[in-house]
Amino acid sequence: MTIAVYPGSFDPITLGHVDIAARAAAIFERLVVAVFDAPAKSLTFTSEDRIAMAREALAHLTNVEVIGFHGLTVDLARRVGAQVIVRGLRAVSDFEVEMQMAFLNRRMAPEIEVVCLPTSLEFSYLSATMIKEIIRLGGPTEGLVPHHVGEALRQKYLGDASTGPVPRFLNS
Amino acid sequence: MTIAVYPGSFDPITLGHVDIAARAAAIFERLVVAVFDAPAKSLTFTSEDRIAMAREALAHLTNVEVIGFHGLTVDLARRVGAQVIVRGLRAVSDFEVEMQMAFLNRRMAPEIEVVCLPTSLEFSYLSATMIKEIIRLGGPTEGLVPHHVGEALRQKYLGDASTGPVPRFLNS
Amino acid sequence: MTIAVYPGSFDPITLGHVDIAARAAAIFERLVVAVFDAPAKSLTFTSEDRIAMAREALAHLTNVEVIGFHGLTVDLARRVGAQVIVRGLRAVSDFEVEMQMAFLNRRMAPEIEVVCLPTSLEFSYLSATMIKEIIRLGGPTEGLVPHHVGEALRQKYLGDASTGPVPRFLNS
Amino acid sequence: MTIAVYPGSFDPITLGHVDIAARAAAIFERLVVAVFDAPAKSLTFTSEDRIAMAREALAHLTNVEVIGFHGLTVDLARRVGAQVIVRGLRAVSDFEVEMQMAFLNRRMAPEIEVVCLPTSLEFSYLSATMIKEIIRLGGPTEGLVPHHVGEALRQKYLGDASTGPVPRFLNS
Amino acid sequence: MTIAVYPGSFDPITLGHVDIAARAAAIFERLVVAVFDAPAKSLTFTSEDRIAMAREALAHLTNVEVIGFHGLTVDLARRVGAQVIVRGLRAVSDFEVEMQMAFLNRRMAPEIEVVCLPTSLEFSYLSATMIKEIIRLGGPTEGLVPHHVGEALRQKYLGDASTGPVPRFLNS
Amino acid sequence: MTIAVYPGSFDPITLGHVDIAARAAAIFERLVVAVFDAPAKSLTFTSEDRIAMAREALAHLTNVEVIGFHGLTVDLARRVGAQVIVRGLRAVSDFEVEMQMAFLNRRMAPEIEVVCLPTSLEFSYLSATMIKEIIRLGGPTEGLVPHHVGEALRQKYLGDASTGPVPRFLNS
Repeated sequence: MTIAVYPGSFDPITLGHVDIAARAAAIFERLVVAVFDAPAKSLTFTSEDRIAMAREALAHLTNVEVIGFHGLTVDLARRVGAQVIVRGLRAVSDFEVEMQMAFLNRRMAPEIEVVCLPTSLEFSYLSATMIKEIIRLGGPTEGLVPHHVGEALRQKYLGDASTGPVPRFLNS
Repeated sequence: MTIAVYPGSFDPITLGHVDIAARAAAIFERLVVAVFDAPAKSLTFTSEDRIAMAREALAHLTNVEVIGFHGLTVDLARRVGAQVIVRGLRAVSDFEVEMQMAFLNRRMAPEIEVVCLPTSLEFSYLSATMIKEIIRLGGPTEGLVPHHVGEALRQKYLGDASTGPVPRFLNS
Repeated sequence: MTIAVYPGSFDPITLGHVDIAARAAAIFERLVVAVFDAPAKSLTFTSEDRIAMAREALAHLTNVEVIGFHGLTVDLARRVGAQVIVRGLRAVSDFEVEMQMAFLNRRMAPEIEVVCLPTSLEFSYLSATMIKEIIRLGGPTEGLVPHHVGEALRQKYLGDASTGPVPRFLNS
Repeated sequence: MTIAVYPGSFDPITLGHVDIAARAAAIFERLVVAVFDAPAKSLTFTSEDRIAMAREALAHLTNVEVIGFHGLTVDLARRVGAQVIVRGLRAVSDFEVEMQMAFLNRRMAPEIEVVCLPTSLEFSYLSATMIKEIIRLGGPTEGLVPHHVGEALRQKYLGDASTGPVPRFLNS
Repeated sequence: MTIAVYPGSFDPITLGHVDIAARAAAIFERLVVAVFDAPAKSLTFTSEDRIAMAREALAHLTNVEVIGFHGLTVDLARRVGAQVIVRGLRAVSDFEVEMQMAFLNRRMAPEIEVVCLPTSLEFSYLSATMIKEIIRLGGPTEGLVPHHVGEALRQKYLGDASTGPVPRFLNS
Repeated sequence: MTIAVYPGSFDPITLGHVDIAARAAAIFERLVVAVFDAPAKSLTFTSEDRIAMAREALAHLTNVEVIGFHGLTVDLARRVGAQVIVRGLRAVSDFEVEMQMAFLNRRMAPEIEVVCLPTSLEFSYLSATMIKEIIRLGGPTEGLVPHHVGEALRQKYLGDASTGPVPRFLNS
């Protein structure tokens, strides 16, 4: 049985993430979606919120489990018995970072394979940063994030005008 | 009559921006240069300053108007009756961001076209960040920014040593 | 009145080309789709066939005219009174070639602007070479090329097994 | 049981291909290495030779089978009951082609996933074209291709000076 | 005698930097490794620490000198009589930044050449940011940074949990 | 004394090549411009012509020598006592090929360094292929190739209409 880990910050989970998780869940027997518990202040949501939103978004995938973690992805993979780390591929800039991470991970854990899945075309232009910017500027999020995530983002950015990190991208 | 919007933060306007605006003004009947009023602290200049510097830099283009705006670029485009959003293209990294923004904007406003103009060769290596770094390190800015913008940058970075965000790039 | 030229070999015209032509026709008063009459043997269709297929594919766009041409694009642009050369942008590899061509064209004709239009997401993975390969291998072309072009390709590649240049790509 | 197809021309198989096949064989229950039987003249080896060299190079991988095929990769995948198409990723230029092929394949067979595996660092600069050029110029191939492939290449390029397509790359 | 300057923030020096310095020292008569004294808070180490770590890491290269500097790299080059600025090349993203910097530097000092050296394959995936992240997450740094740098990083990140800027990359 | 080799097909030499050679000649004590004697038919000029044109174009650089060669570049470098192979860098697509070649060359000759020089901005969009296309279509070549090379190209392409390989690029 091949177990795969899909690590990320999922801040918050988008339909692009859901797409990758569903693809991975179709290929591998079990998929562990691992929400990285980085103590960084530039996150929009807490670990608890990010895990909860991911769980709700992926509830329909029966062989997928969402957990939080800290430490190295390869250590997590070993802990859960995974042979595979899954990553989504969108653009050239993704590609280089993913290659770097794949080489570093292999160095630390040669027995674990990195597998890159191309995103669906319709999500290839999606990033959590862009979605936050759209929300902040009052734009629509249907088709970009799950409904409950859109609600959480709207509450975060529009319900509380003084809220934390303000992404600047779409109009930069 | 085709009206075009050229959005950006213009923090501050460079000769690369002026080049793109002039090209767009030659193609379209009217060009609205829209200075994004993002309330973010990582800006070097206030909205008022950015708008004023852009106005002075573009005063010679008679069919160009400079305005401030907040909200989504596509909403602004609709408000001013523009059918076109203009963007400058310099490098591969620009390209990917522009494609992402074009797809997102089309999703929100399919009736508005995104048009990318390649910069002049001589400005293809210019960015506001790099110019600020050159200024901060005491380098010359002739040929990079309009004269009045160079003055404003020098006052900002050299006249007040404790000033705000310090770009780190040229020597990184 | 802004006249634009959209040059290419159109061997044959795809729905990606039609998409770019429609976008350009919405922005500019008149669009001249210019089919390059290169005497190269690596073409699949004759100039006459390529022009005829393009004309049929673009017949619904009333301000679009299809012509054949030889020589430099900038000379053609001057001949038809165009101020703009239109190019489609799909991928990073497109981007570099387009930038090179834009710089060369400007050198030869500084008064003519190059305008790049991002393709629709659904056509961003399309190329004439890939379509020929799909046809040759017996795959479906609905949604990739206009119906009459699909017929012509099938006749070319499947009706006559010994036909000319055989693209090798999809399985390479 | 997840079955994967690893398609290619393998003209000839390199240690980079062997690396990807071994990685895929470690993840999936069964791997079908599919040698594309393209009737193109720019191939260096016949289908029979390419299949035989691949079989010898992969004989140590017990869950790997080498077959020839013609037609679309997605049709082959369906024929052999594969849910996955495996592709190697080396460089940015690979990346764009792979994304295009992934989107086209999904369009034709949405039930089949494309999985990209980053090559080992030591093979990231390898291509069959470069290896042929090295051979042709009398360079060493240890560590680039399996021993029997190096022999076959030397015989092809050095034993018969008038042989077929001459790659030009290393010194271009 | 050709003197070269290798500028950077070296925060801290990695084995990738050591590799580039050794290559440059083999080509040029004298190499000045110049540690940029940027007063930015996002640095992990002080200028003194960065210079000291670089000196220890490069002590085996007899024609290499490590100095601190502020101001423009081209001004430094002139001050030390260097005709060449050396830069390491790892990835496509490096490439674009280096090209931009080369063009800007030439504009300011046409008599000074920029020379890019490709990193060793084994260091092509290394960045100071990634190394800090690995350290912070408890991973091994053998083969990534000199021993004394690894110690300094571990003390910085693990000995003092409340320490400054926290890179987020590997699990993002 | 550092000797450098600048290898290429120089078919024909352009002002971009001259620019790189002049930069290298300013850094290194001696520069050997090595014209690759590939027996490929896709060349436009014979080895003799390519060498002669390069010699005339570089006659003003007193420490530069032009030779023909066949075989591997690293073997040539060893033969002439060079420690350095020089390559020009123009675009991202150049970059990847150069990195691949650098890694392969290091594998074969670890004692020889590869040094990449960014081209002048004004030549960054130049390629021999594009220049041939411009010539063939009747365009001007001032500022692209040395005068005698322009003459040779015009004679080749315009004086003899049935001449060899016809590049297709500018209008493709």
